[in-house]
Amino acid sequence: MSLNPDLENRLRDLLGARLSVTAADRGEHARSESLHSAPPPDAVVWPETADEVAQILAACNETGTPVIPWGTGTSLEGHALAYTGGVTLDLMRMDRIVEVRAGDMQVTVQPGVTREALNTELRATGLFFPVDPGANASLGGMAATRASGTTAVRYGTMRDNVLALEVVLADGRIIRTGTRAAKSSAGYDLTGLFVGAEGTLGVITELTLRLHGQPEEVAAAVCAFDTLDHAVECVTATIQSGIPMARIEFVDAATARAFNLHSGASLPEKPHLMVEFHGSPVSVREDAESFGALAGEFGGQGFDWASSTEDRARLWRMRHGAYHASFVLRPGARGIITDVCVPMSELPAAVTAAAADIEAEGLLGPIVGHVGDGNFHTLLLVDPENADEIARAKQVATRMAERAIAVGGTISGEHGIGVGKRGLMAAQHGAGWQVMGDIKAALDPRNILNPGKLVADRN
Amino acid sequence: MSLNPDLENRLRDLLGARLSVTAADRGEHARSESLHSAPPPDAVVWPETADEVAQILAACNETGTPVIPWGTGTSLEGHALAYTGGVTLDLMRMDRIVEVRAGDMQVTVQPGVTREALNTELRATGLFFPVDPGANASLGGMAATRASGTTAVRYGTMRDNVLALEVVLADGRIIRTGTRAAKSSAGYDLTGLFVGAEGTLGVITELTLRLHGQPEEVAAAVCAFDTLDHAVECVTATIQSGIPMARIEFVDAATARAFNLHSGASLPEKPHLMVEFHGSPVSVREDAESFGALAGEFGGQGFDWASSTEDRARLWRMRHGAYHASFVLRPGARGIITDVCVPMSELPAAVTAAAADIEAEGLLGPIVGHVGDGNFHTLLLVDPENADEIARAKQVATRMAERAIAVGGTISGEHGIGVGKRGLMAAQHGAGWQVMGDIKAALDPRNILNPGKLVADRN
Repeated sequence: MSLNPDLENRLRDLLGARLSVTAADRGEHARSESLHSAPPPDAVVWPETADEVAQILAACNETGTPVIPWGTGTSLEGHALAYTGGVTLDLMRMDRIVEVRAGDMQVTVQPGVTREALNTELRATGLFFPVDPGANASLGGMAATRASGTTAVRYGTMRDNVLALEVVLADGRIIRTGTRAAKSSAGYDLTGLFVGAEGTLGVITELTLRLHGQPEEVAAAVCAFDTLDHAVECVTATIQSGIPMARIEFVDAATARAFNLHSGASLPEKPHLMVEFHGSPVSVREDAESFGALAGEFGGQGFDWASSTEDRARLWRMRHGAYHASFVLRPGARGIITDVCVPMSELPAAVTAAAADIEAEGLLGPIVGHVGDGNFHTLLLVDPENADEIARAKQVATRMAERAIAVGGTISGEHGIGVGKRGLMAAQHGAGWQVMGDIKAALDPRNILNPGKLVADRN
Repeated sequence: MSLNPDLENRLRDLLGARLSVTAADRGEHARSESLHSAPPPDAVVWPETADEVAQILAACNETGTPVIPWGTGTSLEGHALAYTGGVTLDLMRMDRIVEVRAGDMQVTVQPGVTREALNTELRATGLFFPVDPGANASLGGMAATRASGTTAVRYGTMRDNVLALEVVLADGRIIRTGTRAAKSSAGYDLTGLFVGAEGTLGVITELTLRLHGQPEEVAAAVCAFDTLDHAVECVTATIQSGIPMARIEFVDAATARAFNLHSGASLPEKPHLMVEFHGSPVSVREDAESFGALAGEFGGQGFDWASSTEDRARLWRMRHGAYHASFVLRPGARGIITDVCVPMSELPAAVTAAAADIEAEGLLGPIVGHVGDGNFHTLLLVDPENADEIARAKQVATRMAERAIAVGGTISGEHGIGVGKRGLMAAQHGAGWQVMGDIKAALDPRNILNPGKLVADRN
């Protein structure tokens, strides 16, 4: 495909060199961290203001041209790929921290600010933004996929931490959703509707986020368990006991092996929990002791406490690197990643069933998880040349999702739908998926906003 | 108006005696706790199942007949009044607690269960449902208005505590939104869309709610301040300091006087804060001491600790009775109630400006508030025969809302829009209000669901 010439001229007049149709720029915006792939977009634009985004969208809407928002390109379900051509809207030049309001524990940012850049800026304020999906993603992209990660068990997800948005609609109208008040009952929760909409309902051009006080005391530890069951049952017991965990992460024996091979760790090749506590010195000590006692009941052993900031940073860098580290277990493989999330009481059975299915299929699939939320991932390592193996891995992933749905869980805890999980939406939502399509049609009647993602194709 | 005879026959066949067109039943469903009033509906129906609700909606949709959901009738913005006739859908016979899942800290209920009935049922589980708007409202109604109340500062609002819904759409389709997992990134947040939609997008027929552990230790206190400014500035300082308040409520001197006259209290006629702490014995002691020290800096005095369950119950019963108690200050008056919510840093100025405006107009308007959220109410006591006074009171309310919008706040922290605040929606949301109307039109094309509330009239 190539861009409508009138549209190209119009965008060129508006953006000058911030419109590109070169193969290099287009190819750079066809990257994907997962197995999903698509041809490059027809053009890439780099707007610098909401008004430019509005003019781009209005122009694309007139010609029915797809617009695909792009942040850091780290999404895992093909969200930012241009399956039907069109214009990729690279928002990374909109990277200004607009205003820090420390007294209200809020910040307003543009969508291209990354979470690490924000936290660097906040360091002196005593505040931080806790949502941490691992990748140094853009905050706009994190809002669009309703991201979460290791700290959601304590601080919530993007759903809980986005207070207000500026959004450009398909026809170029600019709206503001939400307020800077702590709560509001003034009409439909449009903020909540755009968070997690994956760029299919509008383009986020500004976000107001909740901040949190940097904890006075932090302690982190890793400990091993003899079996996967014991580790996961310990998690369920911990959450049910009400110990306020800041992080509680599971990694299986294969992942521990990957850490040893890839990250220079020296962990026993057993399932582990990695935990963190935030609070006052007194409360952190109490919480850590309570967790230690509980872990002991499930055979937790070899507690290794990371008390310095550097040790903790190393621990969580290793955990966040699990995705990349795991490829050491099968060089040359590609990964199919799963993302189910289930009620806490269902977690041990769900993880055990996933592990058994992977083993029964003779696949390699390390398991990690934000288990305090009931969310876990398997990284199914497949030979990209082996169609049969890929098919079997996809069946394992589908069965995992179907089991999650059957026990009241979800096919995606944090990665979103994109193209990768769209085939499972009807199974999870039934007629509710049609309602999502009805809302999409009302807000984007020409279907220009990230088409082919999340909702069903139109008839 | 009267009911379409074909529709009446159809509903009679479905519901028998659970359809009424008597003046008594219709009048009972024209009650209002506020100044808003409307003629009775043409009929009242009492469905007992979601399937019956679906059949009623499908029938009303065919004839274009308005359907007004009804819970306990305690809403304050005319939400449940039948301004354009139609059928009032009384959901109070759907009052079953479907399932308590203590291990997941969740409960599934029908919409006619009240919050007090739920908490009575939960008493033995060690869990409770914290959202507390004062009135013993139905949980369906609380979800529909996105209710909150005294404990939202700690436990969040209905937005934060509703995990999943069963909803009947205008055409009679039944959908399920959300999941029982702690988080999900699987598509648009339909749960969040229906919570706070005031029955204009669908009828809630089942709710899955988050529960919380009953705190091990609870302590509550009331203390006086010499000036309104000092009390409110103490609140802002408390929230900014991060002391985890379970409740922090403001009442002004006039309200203290009302408590003395109406509830047999013996408070100094000064502004007060009423606070509560939840946690372990150690943490409650620490938090209470931190708050006491901070209150002392603002001249807080006469701390009265309510340590027994009975004393605490009496304290919060008194606080929740403020609305009714205030009428003792002007017997025969009616009340116009305001509900703005502002960012914490704006709270002292907002309360001070409201008090000054009320005084300048020569009105009587006691002020109370869930000030830990930045949310406060004035009850403007007006002579129902005095049109000029009512007009001036409404102007005071409008100015309060306009000032809230100007500082990034909201016209409604918890009461919702209904008919009462609809005239302010364009000022708060701009083009976003049109987007709400677009969503309404997509989901309820014949505009049968609670018409005339929240969104703009259709052209």
